[in-house]
Amino acid sequence: MPPVTVFVCTTCRRSGDAEDAPRAGATLAAKAEPLAGPDLAVRPVECLGNCSRGPTAAIAVPGGWTYVFGNLDPAEAAPALQEGARLLAAAEGQVMPWRGRPEPLKRGLIARIPPLEFPA
Amino acid sequence: MPPVTVFVCTTCRRSGDAEDAPRAGATLAAKAEPLAGPDLAVRPVECLGNCSRGPTAAIAVPGGWTYVFGNLDPAEAAPALQEGARLLAAAEGQVMPWRGRPEPLKRGLIARIPPLEFPA
Repeated sequence: MPPVTVFVCTTCRRSGDAEDAPRAGATLAAKAEPLAGPDLAVRPVECLGNCSRGPTAAIAVPGGWTYVFGNLDPAEAAPALQEGARLLAAAEGQVMPWRGRPEPLKRGLIARIPPLEFPA
Repeated sequence: MPPVTVFVCTTCRRSGDAEDAPRAGATLAAKAEPLAGPDLAVRPVECLGNCSRGPTAAIAVPGGWTYVFGNLDPAEAAPALQEGARLLAAAEGQVMPWRGRPEPLKRGLIARIPPLEFPA
């Protein structure tokens, strides 16, 4: 298992998008998937349940906190997710630091969930 | 580790609550903690990041999907969380079934996140 995984909802629409427009979530997933590598897994998912505030992605790491982000820009958020994943994987305490966190992952925070081992 | 964990944010306020009112999240946590047992862990957490739509709780199980719920009634949601945890722990495929899911965990869904092993 790679050290950190980005899940991207492929079903999300943005409010205001035409019914026959490409799904914004699918666009974001297509931008994120090429960023995968030995240190980063990118997994498309059909629904992350954040339907009213998509596009949506989550970042998770073994033994760490999990983060859900919404209102992402499908064309531009992929590098922010990659950087957030890097920050989380490198973080002591397995919490994504606020300092240095890309702006879309500050204003777009939907929820964060502790690891099952919490409190350690 | 117990088979399923409920995390309850103790910091959440409900919009409209007075500044000096007890924290709704702390009330919910106090109601949920006595429900813990050999099959259920209940963990208070200082912030689950769902600050605009609290009170907030998450349900997580090893190897399964994780669920975040918001807009919970602090006085009444604890048994719904207990039942949701039971459903998730018992679920094939580690997805919480919609049928039988308590109403607060239907209308209150904030997000759901796959296990790191997804897709299996």
